Amino acid sequence: MIALDRLSIDGIARDVRSGRRTAAAVIADVIERLAAYDPVQSAVWISRHDADALRAAAAQVDARVAAGEALALAGVPFAVKDNIDVAGLDTTAGCPAFAYRPHRSATIVERLVAAGAIPVGKTNLDQFATGLNGTRSPYGIPRNAHNRDWISGGSSSGSAIAVAAGLVAFALGTDTAGSGRVPAAFNHLVGFKPTRGRWSSRGLVPACRTLDCITVFASTADEAALVDAVAAGFDSEDALSRALADAPRGRRRIGVPPADQCRWFGDTESAFLYRQALAGIDAELVEIDLAPLNAAARLLYDGPWIAERTAALQPLLERDADAVHPVVREIVEQGRCYTAVDAFRGNYHLAELARAAERMWADVDLIVLPTAPTSYRVREMLAAPIALNATLGAYTNFVNLLDMAAIAVPTGIYASGVGFGVTLMGPAGTDRALIDAATALFPAPALPPPLDLEGRMESVKLAVVGAHLKDMPLHWQLTSRDARFVGATTTAPTYRLYAMADSVPPKPALVHSPDGAAIALEIYELDMAAFGSFVADVPPPLAIGTVTLADGSQVKGFVAEPRALAGAEDITALGGWRAYVAR
Amino acid sequence: MIALDRLSIDGIARDVRSGRRTAAAVIADVIERLAAYDPVQSAVWISRHDADALRAAAAQVDARVAAGEALALAGVPFAVKDNIDVAGLDTTAGCPAFAYRPHRSATIVERLVAAGAIPVGKTNLDQFATGLNGTRSPYGIPRNAHNRDWISGGSSSGSAIAVAAGLVAFALGTDTAGSGRVPAAFNHLVGFKPTRGRWSSRGLVPACRTLDCITVFASTADEAALVDAVAAGFDSEDALSRALADAPRGRRRIGVPPADQCRWFGDTESAFLYRQALAGIDAELVEIDLAPLNAAARLLYDGPWIAERTAALQPLLERDADAVHPVVREIVEQGRCYTAVDAFRGNYHLAELARAAERMWADVDLIVLPTAPTSYRVREMLAAPIALNATLGAYTNFVNLLDMAAIAVPTGIYASGVGFGVTLMGPAGTDRALIDAATALFPAPALPPPLDLEGRMESVKLAVVGAHLKDMPLHWQLTSRDARFVGATTTAPTYRLYAMADSVPPKPALVHSPDGAAIALEIYELDMAAFGSFVADVPPPLAIGTVTLADGSQVKGFVAEPRALAGAEDITALGGWRAYVAR
Repeated sequence: MIALDRLSIDGIARDVRSGRRTAAAVIADVIERLAAYDPVQSAVWISRHDADALRAAAAQVDARVAAGEALALAGVPFAVKDNIDVAGLDTTAGCPAFAYRPHRSATIVERLVAAGAIPVGKTNLDQFATGLNGTRSPYGIPRNAHNRDWISGGSSSGSAIAVAAGLVAFALGTDTAGSGRVPAAFNHLVGFKPTRGRWSSRGLVPACRTLDCITVFASTADEAALVDAVAAGFDSEDALSRALADAPRGRRRIGVPPADQCRWFGDTESAFLYRQALAGIDAELVEIDLAPLNAAARLLYDGPWIAERTAALQPLLERDADAVHPVVREIVEQGRCYTAVDAFRGNYHLAELARAAERMWADVDLIVLPTAPTSYRVREMLAAPIALNATLGAYTNFVNLLDMAAIAVPTGIYASGVGFGVTLMGPAGTDRALIDAATALFPAPALPPPLDLEGRMESVKLAVVGAHLKDMPLHWQLTSRDARFVGATTTAPTYRLYAMADSVPPKPALVHSPDGAAIALEIYELDMAAFGSFVADVPPPLAIGTVTLADGSQVKGFVAEPRALAGAEDITALGGWRAYVAR
Repeated sequence: MIALDRLSIDGIARDVRSGRRTAAAVIADVIERLAAYDPVQSAVWISRHDADALRAAAAQVDARVAAGEALALAGVPFAVKDNIDVAGLDTTAGCPAFAYRPHRSATIVERLVAAGAIPVGKTNLDQFATGLNGTRSPYGIPRNAHNRDWISGGSSSGSAIAVAAGLVAFALGTDTAGSGRVPAAFNHLVGFKPTRGRWSSRGLVPACRTLDCITVFASTADEAALVDAVAAGFDSEDALSRALADAPRGRRRIGVPPADQCRWFGDTESAFLYRQALAGIDAELVEIDLAPLNAAARLLYDGPWIAERTAALQPLLERDADAVHPVVREIVEQGRCYTAVDAFRGNYHLAELARAAERMWADVDLIVLPTAPTSYRVREMLAAPIALNATLGAYTNFVNLLDMAAIAVPTGIYASGVGFGVTLMGPAGTDRALIDAATALFPAPALPPPLDLEGRMESVKLAVVGAHLKDMPLHWQLTSRDARFVGATTTAPTYRLYAMADSVPPKPALVHSPDGAAIALEIYELDMAAFGSFVADVPPPLAIGTVTLADGSQVKGFVAEPRALAGAEDITALGGWRAYVAR
């Protein structure tokens, strides 16, 4: 099978401009890649130009290059979220009953094509861009490119996957509440959301029209900058377009929230990955208050702005309400409950919050927040589609309401293979400054894990500290379950170890304690079913909980109920169970 | 598919004697059953009479019945462990290189055939009857009839399964260290091990010749008695045969060990099932000391008796050592290390222990112990074949050394579907008294669960007490994993419930405490992989451990590390989390 490595905007454009490669060759490669990935998940796309049309577009680019045109994006293949018009392809917004065939492409698409980029097709999305998860589409559920048990994030699900899977070099998304950032994080991508009005919205199906932005997914911030250079700029055909001055670049007072303001919804792996991302920043961090941002976020779905969505869909809802995805409909119909009075009051409230945000910008030039607080499996998302979606927007919902620019960058990898990232945000006009900062602060993002082409077996890391250690009496409970040895390390220096009384075979109890020490342990990796059967056999008072390691990361591991300490001997000073057994 | 219900010795013999059914009809049914179960696990059998031979044997029985012979076991099909001779079939003892074709059946088989029983074939076993687990055979691994992920028990593996799967009405096993009892327990059968010498050993391949007994697997103690009535009795052709007087029947002072002498090797489910079995006994229980029995048990594998096994195999080991199963060889070759001095000293030691056991029989008439302290999955057994096998013999190894009779009876069912049972033991000659007692004390053994004909999906029961309860904020973590609601109940009255400080969403911590109360909970059942993925997501300080329910049984469930109690509010008085949330 052809290697689905990432495609480089810069690499392709240079090659085609210089004649090292033709656009025709680039497109021939793309056609092979599409064919290779379609069997993996065809739900990435809603429609595509056929191979002949793609070859014709490539031939046109080659002719323009041959004619001496300097094309910034010569021959660069890109995907377009299917709520943005591309002439010759239907715009569905994820709703067949809504589909129409535009006679003209959106302004942004026109500009990109003028620069030599080649639109490949239209990508799947949460219907009407309503959602941050990627599961709300009648065209199927595009799944995370790196672990298909997990959500891709949304609403720009297909666009993110198309870039992550190496099908195109960049993709257009849109972003009202986080749709251009959350899927970037989960698929190990950069997601650049320009300041509202920096990129034209003509040709975009509105979600919340005053807030909607077209965005770009790319592999790096520098590559996103190449797209921004072509796409940005005032558009007189768009009532909400703005002629914005670029903010000064290079100033880097960075705001981060105090740990107790971060919400992780029980996901300690995210908390660790965020700390790890911040620890890598070579700059001073200033503490900021998230309260006004959180208050603004609540306005988006629990306030009158939801009525913008209702407005956008009213004709369709009156004509054919059943054509709308049931979850989307449930959300959008809430908009009917708000009066104009509510809308005004919402605006007053927002203005106050914006004022508070402005004060924040006096202290810091940008802020760095998690892009999403956690991720979910597809099945989890389907079980609680509204509640879990709200969770995903914890750090994104307020951004457009408070008139910020943002760029999501990949910084870490969950054990599942799903991506974790942070988002740099600044006030309106800081777009280029944020792109610069992203490159400077996160120069070497973690290499994405392999694509999930065949379905990934989920596994868990388990720390053992006693009778399950290698050569100890219960080690067979691991080997019989094909546990893979990952390594030996110690806990964080916040544990005490006890030899339990009357335990057969003798077993220790590991107890978290501020007044603790580093305890020796071994880490094994097990597939989910093997892990489940292992946990099922753990006798009381032991249990499987969460153990913090020396490097601050957390794995599952043996912990103990309080009753384990009755009559137990404190052997912390020995540093581990082996030393105790030897004694 | 034909129903593989258990076959009844008594039912068949009555039918055939009375002419209600012919032996030919019985055998025709058996042939169908064999054909139905062969695709499930053909490893049950090493060799079988072909259909024509079986029909011929049945015709002979029918002719004898027609001729007026009173046949106690008229037309009853039975299986024979393949270390017992049956004329016309090879005896392999589980080792192809050892195989020979006997010209005469073992005395016990001759007696059974004389009584009208029909031998169907020879069953698989741990090679040379060395093992209690069933995995040590070059003829494949017969697996537990009720859950094929789990061991059948051994060494009489195939014989137990043949009865459990309804292929024959009874089966002959052998028992040196527990081989006639452990597989009975795991497959929900009665396993009767006569006093040494009560049943002739002529025609039996020796394991430890001074200790070996032929045994019977049947569905009930009464059915085992029908076989004993035919099989028992002095045999002048067997040097170790004994003419034993039957001990008086009907005296029932029952000895059981104190709880702290019971060894469960971490398996609290076994402990519960044993308590449950004892609780059902309608008789006075007297506490006995297991120490001398345990000391005798250790002699069997960690003492000179192992040299009996070496002696039995010496010619083969010298001729073709590679023909012996590697685990069996490792065990048997240890016998070379013991000197005659060791052997004598072992006998002196055993004599002292026998004296202690005799003193025990002054206080009690029989003792009731678990048949096995735990069970294992096949894969676990293969990972630690010697250590785990030793565990299985914790309550069986000493019985022949101390000259006891024993009958294993089924009394419970593990969550896995594997059987749990207890064994009644008495001094030499108490055979009939034990059979009577088994029927009197355990009149209604638990109905065995369905046979595992298609591979059983392993599952776990999980108790939730807080945010995962139905309609609570994290309930989706269960529904998204297809958790099945099993029921609502409470913990044993030994728990306290705390509302943890700063937990989002609010969550309780369940803490075991003698000074506790019954806390409301809900139980869900999950498949192993789903359970594993659920546990992986549990954030600290919560963990998944073991929770004791109101009925004394245990399930996996939420417990908490000690640190969970920092700043927590004790809400035990409310009786459950719902009441707290409502407040």
